[in-house]
Amino acid sequence: MREVGIGIAGFGTVGGGVLSILENHAREIEARLGARIVVRRVAVRDPAKERAVSLDPRLVTTRLEDLLEDVRIEVLVELMGGTAEAFDLVMGALSRGKHVVTANKALIASRGEDIFRLAVEKGVDVYYEGAVCGGIPIIRTLREALASDRIQSLHGIVNGTTNYILTAMADRGETLAQALAEAQRLGYAEADPTLDVSGGDAAQKLCILAQLAFGARLKPEDVLTEGILSLEPQDFQWGREFGYALKLLAIARRVEPAEGEARGPDLIEARVHPAFIRQGSLLAGVRGAFNAVLLRSEALGPSMLFGQGAGALPTGSAVVSDIIDLSRNIVASSPGRVPLPPATPRVQLRPHAEIHSSYYLRFTVRDAPGVLARLAACLAGRRISIAAVQQREQADGGTGVPLVIVTHGAREADLRGAIAEIDGYDTTLAPTRLIRIESI
Amino acid sequence: MREVGIGIAGFGTVGGGVLSILENHAREIEARLGARIVVRRVAVRDPAKERAVSLDPRLVTTRLEDLLEDVRIEVLVELMGGTAEAFDLVMGALSRGKHVVTANKALIASRGEDIFRLAVEKGVDVYYEGAVCGGIPIIRTLREALASDRIQSLHGIVNGTTNYILTAMADRGETLAQALAEAQRLGYAEADPTLDVSGGDAAQKLCILAQLAFGARLKPEDVLTEGILSLEPQDFQWGREFGYALKLLAIARRVEPAEGEARGPDLIEARVHPAFIRQGSLLAGVRGAFNAVLLRSEALGPSMLFGQGAGALPTGSAVVSDIIDLSRNIVASSPGRVPLPPATPRVQLRPHAEIHSSYYLRFTVRDAPGVLARLAACLAGRRISIAAVQQREQADGGTGVPLVIVTHGAREADLRGAIAEIDGYDTTLAPTRLIRIESI
Repeated sequence: MREVGIGIAGFGTVGGGVLSILENHAREIEARLGARIVVRRVAVRDPAKERAVSLDPRLVTTRLEDLLEDVRIEVLVELMGGTAEAFDLVMGALSRGKHVVTANKALIASRGEDIFRLAVEKGVDVYYEGAVCGGIPIIRTLREALASDRIQSLHGIVNGTTNYILTAMADRGETLAQALAEAQRLGYAEADPTLDVSGGDAAQKLCILAQLAFGARLKPEDVLTEGILSLEPQDFQWGREFGYALKLLAIARRVEPAEGEARGPDLIEARVHPAFIRQGSLLAGVRGAFNAVLLRSEALGPSMLFGQGAGALPTGSAVVSDIIDLSRNIVASSPGRVPLPPATPRVQLRPHAEIHSSYYLRFTVRDAPGVLARLAACLAGRRISIAAVQQREQADGGTGVPLVIVTHGAREADLRGAIAEIDGYDTTLAPTRLIRIESI
Repeated sequence: MREVGIGIAGFGTVGGGVLSILENHAREIEARLGARIVVRRVAVRDPAKERAVSLDPRLVTTRLEDLLEDVRIEVLVELMGGTAEAFDLVMGALSRGKHVVTANKALIASRGEDIFRLAVEKGVDVYYEGAVCGGIPIIRTLREALASDRIQSLHGIVNGTTNYILTAMADRGETLAQALAEAQRLGYAEADPTLDVSGGDAAQKLCILAQLAFGARLKPEDVLTEGILSLEPQDFQWGREFGYALKLLAIARRVEPAEGEARGPDLIEARVHPAFIRQGSLLAGVRGAFNAVLLRSEALGPSMLFGQGAGALPTGSAVVSDIIDLSRNIVASSPGRVPLPPATPRVQLRPHAEIHSSYYLRFTVRDAPGVLARLAACLAGRRISIAAVQQREQADGGTGVPLVIVTHGAREADLRGAIAEIDGYDTTLAPTRLIRIESI
């Protein structure tokens, strides 16, 4: 039987998952592939480390070069993480004509352009299903299943840590600190959760998805990114009263230029932020550490993929599917079968100031006559139309009372201007909280 | 640029969708494929018929042989429906070395075996994403994304007509007749809805999915199939009281042999029936004419695909994705890249009598002393344990009162025996209704 040799760099959680799937499902894989996948070398940092999955010591090396130099290795599987060493390794493999599978979202989001260019030049493949949403086949769906369609929008819950935290806050009324501590205790959040709770991780994933969905070329810093740190239990309560669930969404969508806005190539918005969505909607039903991506496309209409976004076996399963797919290309001598994203961007990013959205605004104001009238006049003066107002009866112990306003669609820049003005009033006692409302 | 010639047989709703996608997205498709897809001939029954999508008259023929004989046609796209003529056409195309794309679920469910065997013999491909759940890439996901995984269960809402009807009954308390009439008026149900409401359509789709997921070889008549015709508005009300939504599910899952049951190859259950599922669960949120498939697999855990299961553009989009995928194989000279399902079954079907499930039983009984005691004794005597009982206070105008019992897990044969006995009691005034409860 034809053998396909692979080399694995990095043997942490996902590496262990990959090896156990390759071993436990070897028979199924051989039957479906018509070839045998053979692990030739595994490069690790510390060979002495205890691991959940045992590793044949003859395969182990600490030298990444051993993977590059081994001519029996046709596919390099990069699971090291980080972007410096991993980038050199991947480029080294490509330049030697080896195919690459990686689950490294930071690498693809920040250096994908160089990696894809070299792969095309060398006529080899790069697969990265494991880089976004673990076991959910979203990359494959965008690259292949929707190849004939035109995607209009993408709304994703792509970070399991924050979705776990938000679900706990919604269900049990916990504060962010409480929910985060519990997520850390259960292994859903890392000791340093900054990348997750800041929205940075979701922004990296959004860049990768927006490239496939729209031909966008974005860096994470191009994405309007707001994390979940300023969310308070009362925002969930207010949301419930208006019929909303609160989720951290990664959103990319085609938009029409507004009146007076420059016309050019197709325009998209790209943003990661907490968003109110209708209770009972499909994304609102995505709970705990799960991920989901809702697509709207011209032919297919709405569609959604749901599953586990992280973990040894879900992500391992995505990596192994990539290895199998690549092996099919190798066996059939058809590399480059599915083209990598184009080098020249097909769409342009709308400036954040031009984003249009409905907003939930939570003001903290002195309970005094005329406060609402002044706020309303400020919003009206900036063409922001009010859809609903709620104020809860409560004693104003000097710290102010909450006043919640839901707006109709408004321009981000107008809204920012209004909030800056209102936050300067002497009747405003705390910074105004803003949460966007998505009607999906 | 390399051209891939296709011939289309049948030009109804889906055919129109396919052609409009090929025309409107020609640029995107060429960019992603690196080749041009050219429609060489379209075979129709009635060339004079008015069509939503206009057809170049020079392409039109009424002779199916023209498609077979045209050597410029590399891919035959079968969209005629039916199983007799369509089977001959597909076999004719395969025997001439043409690849086949079909959206014909009845054909694949009933004659897939012969079709796949000839395709393997001739070294050509058969793709059929459009045959199940329209635009949802479930076939592709089972064939490719989950190639390294072992699927444990599959729960699908695979018939949009019945899901539309059940949603209307749940939301508006309509009778089945009212909801069906409205579905027909809106084009969600055909004039003769038998295949949909009987569960037969879902059973065909389940056969195709179970073959890919488990290597099962089932005929629709092998599947335990119950339709929705006996559901009444009060079943929805009772369900709500117990916290359930009511859906028509297609279910296939691996099971362990029970004590005393024969051991052999892997055992599966395959069934289509109305089922109560927990309110707030993902499948419960699939409303209207939408479809969804929830998979559980060893590595990935739970995952779900959601989208439109029918319609010109959703199904057309699936067919075009297949054409593109096949064209990639043609361009790269790598037919048979993804193997067709195996000819020898890998699993065995558990006899329906051995199915284990929890049940909702709605008895219609005379409101008299001792009735509940006698029912309960009958169930206990057949090892059926009661989880909950509810009886609504209402006047017994001679037609009986409803008594609802929810059971713990029980064996189908035991339950059937108990119902047969109870329906013979002189205190039972109408046939007992049974709905299975799925904890997913």
